[in-house]
Amino acid sequence: MTLRIGVIGTGAIGREHIHRITHKLKGAQVVAVNDVNTEQAQGVVRALDLEAKVYTTGAEVIQAADVDAVIVTSWGPTHEEFVLASIAAGKPVFCEKPLAVTAEGCRQIVEAEMAAGRKLVQVGFMRRFDYAYRQLKCVLEADTIGAPLILNCVHRNPEAPGFSGDMALTDSCVHEFDVLRWLLADDYISAQVIQPRRTRLCDDDSLQDPHVILLRTRQGVHISIESFVNCQYGYDIQCQVVGETGTANLPEPASVPVRREAKLSFDILVSWKDRFIDAFDVEFQEWIDATTRGEMTGPSAWDGYVVAMTSDACVKAKHSGQIEPIELPECPDFYTN
Amino acid sequence: MTLRIGVIGTGAIGREHIHRITHKLKGAQVVAVNDVNTEQAQGVVRALDLEAKVYTTGAEVIQAADVDAVIVTSWGPTHEEFVLASIAAGKPVFCEKPLAVTAEGCRQIVEAEMAAGRKLVQVGFMRRFDYAYRQLKCVLEADTIGAPLILNCVHRNPEAPGFSGDMALTDSCVHEFDVLRWLLADDYISAQVIQPRRTRLCDDDSLQDPHVILLRTRQGVHISIESFVNCQYGYDIQCQVVGETGTANLPEPASVPVRREAKLSFDILVSWKDRFIDAFDVEFQEWIDATTRGEMTGPSAWDGYVVAMTSDACVKAKHSGQIEPIELPECPDFYTN
Amino acid sequence: MTLRIGVIGTGAIGREHIHRITHKLKGAQVVAVNDVNTEQAQGVVRALDLEAKVYTTGAEVIQAADVDAVIVTSWGPTHEEFVLASIAAGKPVFCEKPLAVTAEGCRQIVEAEMAAGRKLVQVGFMRRFDYAYRQLKCVLEADTIGAPLILNCVHRNPEAPGFSGDMALTDSCVHEFDVLRWLLADDYISAQVIQPRRTRLCDDDSLQDPHVILLRTRQGVHISIESFVNCQYGYDIQCQVVGETGTANLPEPASVPVRREAKLSFDILVSWKDRFIDAFDVEFQEWIDATTRGEMTGPSAWDGYVVAMTSDACVKAKHSGQIEPIELPECPDFYTN
Amino acid sequence: MTLRIGVIGTGAIGREHIHRITHKLKGAQVVAVNDVNTEQAQGVVRALDLEAKVYTTGAEVIQAADVDAVIVTSWGPTHEEFVLASIAAGKPVFCEKPLAVTAEGCRQIVEAEMAAGRKLVQVGFMRRFDYAYRQLKCVLEADTIGAPLILNCVHRNPEAPGFSGDMALTDSCVHEFDVLRWLLADDYISAQVIQPRRTRLCDDDSLQDPHVILLRTRQGVHISIESFVNCQYGYDIQCQVVGETGTANLPEPASVPVRREAKLSFDILVSWKDRFIDAFDVEFQEWIDATTRGEMTGPSAWDGYVVAMTSDACVKAKHSGQIEPIELPECPDFYTN
Repeated sequence: MTLRIGVIGTGAIGREHIHRITHKLKGAQVVAVNDVNTEQAQGVVRALDLEAKVYTTGAEVIQAADVDAVIVTSWGPTHEEFVLASIAAGKPVFCEKPLAVTAEGCRQIVEAEMAAGRKLVQVGFMRRFDYAYRQLKCVLEADTIGAPLILNCVHRNPEAPGFSGDMALTDSCVHEFDVLRWLLADDYISAQVIQPRRTRLCDDDSLQDPHVILLRTRQGVHISIESFVNCQYGYDIQCQVVGETGTANLPEPASVPVRREAKLSFDILVSWKDRFIDAFDVEFQEWIDATTRGEMTGPSAWDGYVVAMTSDACVKAKHSGQIEPIELPECPDFYTN
Repeated sequence: MTLRIGVIGTGAIGREHIHRITHKLKGAQVVAVNDVNTEQAQGVVRALDLEAKVYTTGAEVIQAADVDAVIVTSWGPTHEEFVLASIAAGKPVFCEKPLAVTAEGCRQIVEAEMAAGRKLVQVGFMRRFDYAYRQLKCVLEADTIGAPLILNCVHRNPEAPGFSGDMALTDSCVHEFDVLRWLLADDYISAQVIQPRRTRLCDDDSLQDPHVILLRTRQGVHISIESFVNCQYGYDIQCQVVGETGTANLPEPASVPVRREAKLSFDILVSWKDRFIDAFDVEFQEWIDATTRGEMTGPSAWDGYVVAMTSDACVKAKHSGQIEPIELPECPDFYTN
Repeated sequence: MTLRIGVIGTGAIGREHIHRITHKLKGAQVVAVNDVNTEQAQGVVRALDLEAKVYTTGAEVIQAADVDAVIVTSWGPTHEEFVLASIAAGKPVFCEKPLAVTAEGCRQIVEAEMAAGRKLVQVGFMRRFDYAYRQLKCVLEADTIGAPLILNCVHRNPEAPGFSGDMALTDSCVHEFDVLRWLLADDYISAQVIQPRRTRLCDDDSLQDPHVILLRTRQGVHISIESFVNCQYGYDIQCQVVGETGTANLPEPASVPVRREAKLSFDILVSWKDRFIDAFDVEFQEWIDATTRGEMTGPSAWDGYVVAMTSDACVKAKHSGQIEPIELPECPDFYTN
Repeated sequence: MTLRIGVIGTGAIGREHIHRITHKLKGAQVVAVNDVNTEQAQGVVRALDLEAKVYTTGAEVIQAADVDAVIVTSWGPTHEEFVLASIAAGKPVFCEKPLAVTAEGCRQIVEAEMAAGRKLVQVGFMRRFDYAYRQLKCVLEADTIGAPLILNCVHRNPEAPGFSGDMALTDSCVHEFDVLRWLLADDYISAQVIQPRRTRLCDDDSLQDPHVILLRTRQGVHISIESFVNCQYGYDIQCQVVGETGTANLPEPASVPVRREAKLSFDILVSWKDRFIDAFDVEFQEWIDATTRGEMTGPSAWDGYVVAMTSDACVKAKHSGQIEPIELPECPDFYTN
C-alpha cells in the first residue's frame, strides 16, 4: 500500500521533502502539490518528474479525494489554517515548525485534534530522529550516568544572514526546546535569558548574538543552551548531560583525522543540512510507516504547543531580564497514551 | 521502472539482502528465489511477505523471463557456475565474494564477460560504499596529504569461531585487498606474510592469529595489514595513509563520549554488521540504480580476479616465509573504461 | 644565593611545600618552622631531615634574623595576622588561600602592603602556574579565536567529605574566581548562583551539590562555572572559551588510550594533587626566583581581595536567588604596575 | 652532598645539560669542562656563569681530583675513549648516544666495566624517562591488555637536513631500539628493512625516506617502526601495543583543542626538544640521585651494546633486502642484577 501525499508549499524545504519521498523513501507518493506561486509548484513537478496534480489552493490539496495525508511546508503564518483544515478533513498532517506562530494557535490545534478524537498531527522537529541524539538517549535510559542534574547545550551556526530580533529563540532554539524535553522526559518550569558580550562579526549591528538560555525542569534539572548564530567557524550542535555518576555527550559527527602542517584536525560541518540530512530521512520514513499503520508516533501537536509556550517565555525573559515561569497546563491523557 | 531480481541462495546474507531490497531500497523487487534447501527458500518468501516464485534450481532463476538481474548469495563454490550462467543469459549479476573460489575461475568469468561484450558482473566488496572510506578517499583525491607512501591497516574481529587454516587471508582480508587498490588506484606487485606471536585466546590452538600482511604496489607504496580475528575487544577496522605532507585516517564510528568511573570512554562496535550495515544499503541501491540505467559501476569481475590473485600470493607467502611476487596481467581496456 | 624561608603551619600542605623546596626546587632552604602543634613541627623537621629551627610562635618565625621570606600554610583564620606581621617586618610572604577569611581582612592587607611601599604578598592560587591554563592563555593572546564572549567552566571532584554550607563557593570555586580573571584580564561585575537538582550521592543530605555560578565581566563576558563536588567519576577541571571566531578548551591531561572490552578509554584523574602537582612546583620555583630578585610576580594581595569580594557576592546570590552586583574599587596603580 | 661533574663536549647538547644541572636540577654542580674548541668551552663557562675549570683535554677532566662523575657529550667517535678512561678511573660516566660508533667498541666497554667490577656507565637514551612511555609501561605491567603480540611504532621528523645514508637507522631509530626492549622486557632476534616509495620532499634526492623497520623478539612479538624523517607536518612519536585482549597507545602530548575555520584542531609539536625536554630533566635528576647513592639505574653499557648490534643488523638488512638475524650473546648476570 502506498501512502498518497499532498504537499502544501513547494519552496526549498518542501521541494526537498518531495524529492526525499519520491527518490529515497519507501511506501509513499506525492500526488498533489500547491504553492502560493503556482508556477513554482508546476516547475517542481516537472523538475522532479512527479505524477502529481498542481492545485491552486492548499484547501484543495487537503480535500483532494486521492490525498491520504498532508505535508505542510508553506510560509509559517499559514500553518495553523492548513493543519486545522487537515484535522477537519480527518487527514493525517505533517507540519513543519512552527505548528502555529502563536501559542494560542497551537492550543486551538490541540483542542481541535482532541475533539477529532484521534492523533493526526506531527510537527517537524527532526532532532528526535537523529541517530546521535538517539544514541545519547539510549545511554541515559540505560542509567549509565545516573539521574540527570544539568544539561549543557550549544547551538552554533556559522552565520545567520536573515536573522533579526528574537529569531535565535523563536526559530532556532525551538529545536532544543523540543529535543531536550524528549531526551529527559521532563518539562520546563522557568526560563532566563542572558545576553553576553555581542559578537562584532554580524551584518546586523543591533542583533544580540550570542544568547544563553537557562531553563529549569520539573525535576530540577538545570539546562543551559548557548545560541550563537554567527559563530563563524561551523555548524556545531553539542549536548552534554551531567548525571549523578557521570556525564554523556552527543557524539560528534565522524570525520577524517588529518595530521598536516603541525596540526591534528577534524573537519567540522558548516551546514545544518549536512548535519541532519539523515534525520530528515528517518523522520519521514517513520511518519510514512506510522501513518500507513494508522498511528502517529513523532512530535505531537502538544509538543508543538509546549515549544511555543517555552519560546514565548524565553522572549519575555530576554526582555525582562528576569526568571520567567513557564506555566504549562497538565498534559492531557490524549497525548500521554 | 522496477528492476526485477532473482536471488540464488536465501541463507543469512541472502535473506538480509532480500529484506533490504524489499523494505529499505527503491526501484527493485525480488521476484524469484532459489536455495539448495527449497523449504528454507519458501520460508523466507513467507516470512518477508514476498510476491516471489521459488525455483528448484539457480539456473531456472537465471532463465526466468521476469528476472531482469541476478543476485548470487549461495555457497561460495557455486558462485562461478551461476555467474557464468548469468553472463550467458546476458543478465546483470551481483555476486557476493568470492567471485570464484580459484583465481582461474575468476579469470574464466573475466573472459566470458569480455566475450559477452558488456559489463554484467559486480562483486560484493561493500567497503567501497562505506561512507568512512569514501571520506578518506576524498581527502586523498583533494591532495590534502600529498602522494601516499605507506598504508597502515587493521582488521580486528572479537572472535572468529569457524576460522581455520588461512581463512583470515582468503575470507577476511580480501576486503582490504579490494578496498585498498580502489583507495590508491594502484595495484599490488608483491606480498609477504608475518606470523607474530600467537594469541592464546582462540578456540583452535593451531590457528595462527594474528597475521601481518605486507603488500607493495606498483607506485612503491608499502601496505601493512594487521589481521587479528580473535582480538577479543571489538570489531575494529582502521586505515591510515601516510603521505608526503601528512597523514589521514579512516574516521572512527561516532559514539557517545561517557565520563564515568575514572574513565572517559567511547563504545567500540563488536559486529561487522553494525559497522557496514549502511554500506550494504548504499552498495545495493547504487547497483539497482546503475543496473536500471544499463551500467555497472561497482567492483568488477576484474577486481574479483585481482583479489583472488592477491589472496593466492598471500597464502603462498605465508607458507614460504618469502616475499612473493603478484604477477597480474595488464588490466584490459574493457575494464578500465 | 639561597633564599632562607620560614614556614608557619606544617600540616599536610605545609609539609608538602617544605618537601618541594628542599628536594625538588632550586635556590631556597627552609630554615625555620612553626606549628600550633610544636611536636608535629619537630616531627616534620626530623622526617624531612631539615636543618631548620622549630619556633613556638609564627611571630618568632617572621622575626627570625635568618628568615628572608615567609610561607603561611597555617589554619585559614590565622592567615591575616601572619601576613600583616610579615608586611610589618618588611619580609616577602607567600600565603596559601584564603588571604584572609573576610574581604575586609584582605582589604586591610592591601592597605598595609601599599603603606609599606612595595609588593610583599603572594597568594597561593596555583592554577596560573598550570601548564594547561598557560597554553590556553597563549591561544587567547595570539587572537586565535577572537574576543572572548562566553566561558564554560567545570570543577568536579569525586567527593568532598568535609564540605558543608557554601564551601563549594568559598573554598573550591575561588580557584576559578582567580584564574578566570587572569585568563581574561578582566573583572567581574555581577554574580548569580543556580541550585540545580541535588545529587543523592552525598554524605550530607542537606548539602546543595551541584551549583552553577554565573559571572559577568566588565567586558560583558558571560561565565558559567559548574561546581560539582560529589560527581563520583573523577577530578575534572574544564574550561572552554567561546570567542568571536572560534572556541578553545583547556587541554585534557595526557593519558594512555586503551581499547578493551568494547571500549576506547582514557583514564581520568581522581585527585587534585595529581592534576596540579606540577603547577605547585612551578608556582614555588617562580616565587623563589622572583623573591630573590626582589620582585613579586604571582597573584597579589589585590587578587586575593577581589576573590574574597567575588566569593562573598556568590554566597549572597545563592541565598537571595538574585543577580548580585560585585562592586570592586578601582584597582590601585600600585597593583597594576 | 653535591655531585661534582665534569663535562666533555660543550656543543649544543652539552651546553643544555650543563644548564639543566646548574639551573634546574638538585644535587650536582659542574666543576670541570672540556671541548675540542677550548674557546667555546670558556664561552659556555662565562655565559652560564659557572664556577668550573676549563681543561685542555677530556682525559684531564676525567682525572681531575674534584670530579666525581663524568658526562660525555663530545663528538660520537670520541665517546668510546672517554668512557673507557672513566671506567679506568673508577668514575661513573653518563655518555650520550652512541656509546661507541661500533658494536665492537660497545662490547669492549662492556668488558672493561665488568672487569672493573661495578656498574659505572649510563647511556643517554632518554625515552625511558619520558612520562608518556612510563604511563604506557604501567598499563602493560598491570596486564590491562594481556600479553603483547604486535607493536606499531612511528618516528616522524618534519625534516632532517643533515641526514645521509643510513642515519635514519643508526642515529634516529636507535631510540626505538632501546625503548622498545625496555617496554617489553624482551630482546630482538631478527630485523628486516623495507624501503617504501620515497618522498620527493627531501633536500637529498638520493636519500631513502621513509623506512619501515621490522623486528621480531624472542617472545615472537612483531615490531614495526616507521621512520619518516622528512614527513613535513611535525615531530610525531607514536607507539601502539597490541595485546591478547586489547591495545594501548603512547599518549599524545596535551594540547589546546581549538574550533576554528571549520576544523577542530590540536597542535602537533615540531621539535624533539619540546617533546622530550622533561624526559631529559628526569633522566639527569635520576642519574644524579642514583650516582650519589652509588648506583646506576638507567640504560647500561649492555643496553648500548644491544642497540649497536640491532642497528648493525638493520643496516645489513636494508642493503640485503633479507630478514637478518640478530645474534646477541646471553646477557651477563652483571647486567641483569
